Parts: sequence; structure tokens; C-alpha cells
Amino acid sequence: MKFNIALLAGDGIGPEVIDQAVKVSDAVANKFGHEITWKPALTGAAAIDAVGEPYPDETHDVCANADAVLFGAIGHPKFDNDPSAQVRPEQGLLKMRKKLGLFANVRPTFTFPSLLDKSPLKQERIEGTDLVFLRELTGGIYFGEKGRRDDGETAYDNCVYTRAEVQRLAKKGFELAMTRSKKLCCVDKANVLETSRLWRETVQAMEKDYPEVEVSYEFVDAVAMRLVQWPNEYDVLITENLFGDILTDEASVISGSMGLMPSASMGADIALFEPIHGSYPQATGLNIANPMATILSAAMMFETAFNLPEEGKAIRDAVNRALAEGIVTEDLADGGKSYGTKEVGDWLASNI
Amino acid sequence: MKFNIALLAGDGIGPEVIDQAVKVSDAVANKFGHEITWKPALTGAAAIDAVGEPYPDETHDVCANADAVLFGAIGHPKFDNDPSAQVRPEQGLLKMRKKLGLFANVRPTFTFPSLLDKSPLKQERIEGTDLVFLRELTGGIYFGEKGRRDDGETAYDNCVYTRAEVQRLAKKGFELAMTRSKKLCCVDKANVLETSRLWRETVQAMEKDYPEVEVSYEFVDAVAMRLVQWPNEYDVLITENLFGDILTDEASVISGSMGLMPSASMGADIALFEPIHGSYPQATGLNIANPMATILSAAMMFETAFNLPEEGKAIRDAVNRALAEGIVTEDLADGGKSYGTKEVGDWLASNI
Ligand SMILES: [Mg+2]
Ligand SMILES: [Mg+2]
Repeated sequence: MKFNIALLAGDGIGPEVIDQAVKVSDAVANKFGHEITWKPALTGAAAIDAVGEPYPDETHDVCANADAVLFGAIGHPKFDNDPSAQVRPEQGLLKMRKKLGLFANVRPTFTFPSLLDKSPLKQERIEGTDLVFLRELTGGIYFGEKGRRDDGETAYDNCVYTRAEVQRLAKKGFELAMTRSKKLCCVDKANVLETSRLWRETVQAMEKDYPEVEVSYEFVDAVAMRLVQWPNEYDVLITENLFGDILTDEASVISGSMGLMPSASMGADIALFEPIHGSYPQATGLNIANPMATILSAAMMFETAFNLPEEGKAIRDAVNRALAEGIVTEDLADGGKSYGTKEVGDWLASNI
Repeated sequence: MKFNIALLAGDGIGPEVIDQAVKVSDAVANKFGHEITWKPALTGAAAIDAVGEPYPDETHDVCANADAVLFGAIGHPKFDNDPSAQVRPEQGLLKMRKKLGLFANVRPTFTFPSLLDKSPLKQERIEGTDLVFLRELTGGIYFGEKGRRDDGETAYDNCVYTRAEVQRLAKKGFELAMTRSKKLCCVDKANVLETSRLWRETVQAMEKDYPEVEVSYEFVDAVAMRLVQWPNEYDVLITENLFGDILTDEASVISGSMGLMPSASMGADIALFEPIHGSYPQATGLNIANPMATILSAAMMFETAFNLPEEGKAIRDAVNRALAEGIVTEDLADGGKSYGTKEVGDWLASNI
């Protein structure tokens, strides 16, 4: 197959880790007989410096016409330390999500056999954990009307959802569940909130279209508990924006490998893949950043955007071998021998 | 000192565990020279059966005139299994909270040296954890206007807070922090929500009244992570209703001793103390229910309502000795020798 992939390296360690993901993806394409055309485009601080805008129209055109977007990281301290800055790199992220219509944030949490001891949870609790949250990303209380009244003494935030918003997110969840163990959990607070009742009734009405998927409904506070107790009992979880913000972060730490976690943001037509870590500006150019989260984001891209599970597995297997054999950057070396960003990428590319 | 304590045993195992808390409290009063007058009153299913109402006016009078309320548990399966029931035991709880003006839910999470291995977290992560959440209980999105529009296709829930609501909760938090390690964490989402910005600015303005208290501000999703990673870094946390609902449940499982956790609900004039477990109807009358959460709720009552930390510590010390010596009900016996509800209460009372 032939793919056009928009390549948004971004800021900080972004370009270094993206380079490794390109190398590994090319190795996969080579092995499986695919052809990737990479379409680099500017974003973040790099784009502000070049054209005064963190998500320029030219970059959007590249993304909109690609089969997928692979993204590094955004953010630069020169903007953080300048409260007067009118244009900030992070605005590029919000603009990109909005213009590409990315409404579902996909956040997996899984374990690496050789890193189980890094989890804050006991081994028997975390072993075998392999779950995915689909978080609604464009609605709910974060985007509802908000403000003050009574001379500023009263504040309000409105949470609003439409049935169509729930349906398009839930559809992604059912589809993802069908490619996995066919278990879907809808996380809500339907005993109290009207928006949650809309979520629940909408998902319930969709069950008949996916008769093979076993659907459960759990309250958000119960899930916050069970994620710590028995995370390996979950598979695919769908939820609204605020609940997802809290629970995906909670889930990200239970494996103890947060620095390795990939993610995706999906729209109707396009999906973007990126590590959950940031631009780590202090490490820029030092060849010490861990490229594995970005490389695993490329694995997700093969699996999710191109429906090529074997290709994704080839990357995951190589990463697990590298971890087991100690081919790791210093963050995972526990004071022992470590490798550079580029060397880890090279090893993975030649072990695909 | 002399105390009048309203005694609401409630349903299921409530009466059995309350009996043990009374026995232990009387032993403490005896040792320290206090005089307790217990004022029993009906609530829950027991009250519905007797007078047709789960929180009768007579019960409210007893509570409103007491120095504190000690509460067992509410709930009976005959109502759960009857969808046509017009009056339910749980309504008594809501009515009681409302009529007594209980606006702050106090939820401690701490560890027992001899039960550390029950935590899903590794020992070095959970050791020394001793934190308290103060959750706002009467405002926020659970109580805001909610409904549907567009023929039911759009649902909404409004989150509303006033400065006065934040102040009265935060005041309890600052006061509690002053009796502990003088660390207070305000949990919000002030980077996105207007209600959170009101919370943050209100707490910031109160800092000058408590110059000894070191106040930090953290986002709810970051706290959901750090509670799993390093729970022992927190002390007193204050937060709004929904965030508190999620985070207190998450916190309750990290110690692995959820069945032992006490709680309190505080108003301006009165406070109520109760275990976080339920009425466990299947165990009613079998003398197998663990009374320790209720007994530890009595310890909280001495400490919080009567400002008698030594008396509270006497109870906690006795509980820790019982746990260390295996004087426990079957839920904690790991298949070994276990004791009845009454026998555990007797042992604790005679070891005060
Ligand atoms: Mg978050
Ligand atoms: Mg809860």
C-alpha cells in the first residue's frame, strides 16, 4: 500500500524522536512492501519563528490531504516565560484539533513485561493490563458557556452534549472494541447527571448494531477505584471530556511507563498520532530523549489508521525486545548502560 | 466533659457495629473522665417501618440538639427490589444532610501498619499515607439546573458555585490543616473552568488569614495521577463536589483497607460520623460484620467534634493493636482465626 503521512516534528525533542519514528516506520514499510511518502510541515514554536503562526494554513493543507498525521511535541520555554506573548505554540495544538475535527482522544495503557517493576501497583495487579480510553475531546463542560454573575461572586460552567456527539464517539468505541476483546465500558454518572443519562441511553440504543460487543456501564467514581484495583479487567472505555481528562491521566501512571505511552486523536476523516509526553526542552539536541513513545505512536498509526495490525505488532515486538535487552535511553537505564536517542532508533529499525 | 450524642444505628449491620462503637466510646469516656449521654433515634428502613419516613422530625430534633451524630448505615434490599417504593431509606440520608446543613464531607485515607500488604500499591508507595479530603457536598454540577432541549437531543448540567460556598468549605480545610501538618492542597481545574477559578481566587484570598498553612494548587487530573504515585505526599485536600466524588473513591482503595475507613459530614453547627461502608444486609445479625470503621468514626468524632485528640488516639492505638494481634473479623482473617463483631468490640473496649 501507499501512504502519505504528514510529519509534524514540532519543538524541543520533537524532531529527534520523530526522526526515529520515521526510520522505524520506513523499516516496517520496507519489510511489508508498503511505500510511505513523508510530508514534513511546520508547527509550534518552529512555525511561529518561521511564519508567525503555530498552525499555518500550509500545514493544515498538508494534514488535511494526508492519510495520517504523525506528531512530535509542541512547546518552547521562551513563550512560557513571556506572559506578553500573543501567539503561543500550544494554540497550534488547539487550532489543529479544531480544524481537523479531532473529536476522539485515544489513550491506551498497557504494560511492558520487562518494566512491570516500575509500576506503583503490585505486579499481580498490573500484569496483563491492556486498556484503551476513548475520550470525547470537543464537547462537555470545557467548551460550554462559562462566566460570572452577581458582581463576580457566582461562577458557572455549563456542560452540554448532543446525541450526535455521543454517537460519533461511541461508534469509534464500538469499532475499536470489535478489533479487540469486544468489551466496551461506558463511563458516566447517570445516577446524577442529565448529560450522563443522554450518554447512557445513546450507547444503549447502539448496542443492537454491535451484537457481539458486551457493553457495561459504570459510574466514573467506581472506575477511578477499579483502575487502581484491577486495571486488567478493562478493555475499551468510552467517556465524556472531563471524566476522560481525569481517568486517562490516572490510567497513564498505573503502568509505571508513562514516558512510553502513545496516543491518537481521531476525527471523521483523519487521525493524528503522538506521544503523551511533552517537548522536554532541556533535552533538545542532546540525543538523550526516549523515542519509544513516538515509535509506539507510529505502531498505533499502522494499526488504527491503516488497519495493519501485523505491522504495528512488528514495532511493538521490537520495542519489547529492546527493553528486555537493555537497548534503552538513560531514563530507563537505572544507572546502567544507556544508549542515545538515535542509537535506540537505529537498533529498532534494524530489528524490525 | 459532658456530651450528648445522637445515635442513628440505621439498617442491616448498622445496629451491631454501632453497639461496638458505643462500647468503645464509653470505655474512652470512662478512662478520660467524660460523660456521654446517648440519644438513640430511628432512621432508614427501620424508621420507614415504624413511622413511614426515613428521617422523621423526631430524629431531626435529636440530631439538631446533639453535640454530634454517630451513624451506622442505611439501606434495605426490600426497597432495592421494589421499583414502586415511594419512600426509600436512602432518601433519609439526603434529607438528613440537607436539614442538618452538612456541606463538607471529610474522607480520610490512612494506612494500618499490619495491613500494608492489602494495598494494590507497593509498600514503599503507600507507607505513611495519611491524607484527608474535604469534599464540598451541597453545590456544583450535581445540584445545578439540568435538563433537555431540542426534543431531548441535547442534555445539559450546570455547575454553579458562590464565593460563600467556597469560603465555608475552605475554612474547614484551613482549620483542619492547622491541626495537622499545615499543608493544604486546593484541587481544581482553573486552567479551564470558571468555577475552578472562583475556587482558586477565593482560597488564595484566605491564605493571609492562615499564614502558617502552606497552600498548593493542583489540577484534578494531576491529583488523580499523584494519588496513585505518591499518596503520602498529600495531607489535607479541599475540592468541589464532583472532583471530590471521584478522588475520594480513588483514594479509598489505595490503602487496601476501604472496609475500615471512617468519614464525617460537617455543617456549621453539627457533624455526623459514619463508616464509608454500607448496610451489608446479607450479614445482618450474624455477628460477622467488621465494626472497626464505625469505631474509627467514633475516634474521628472525639478528635474533630470534641477536639480531644488523645481520646481519638486511644481508639486508633487499640485498633492497631487488635489488627497486629489478629483480633479481627473474618474479612481480615485471611482464612485464619477470626472473631465475632461483638468480641472485637469487647476486646477493643477492654484495651482502651
Ligand atoms: Mg488530563
Ligand atoms: Mg463517589
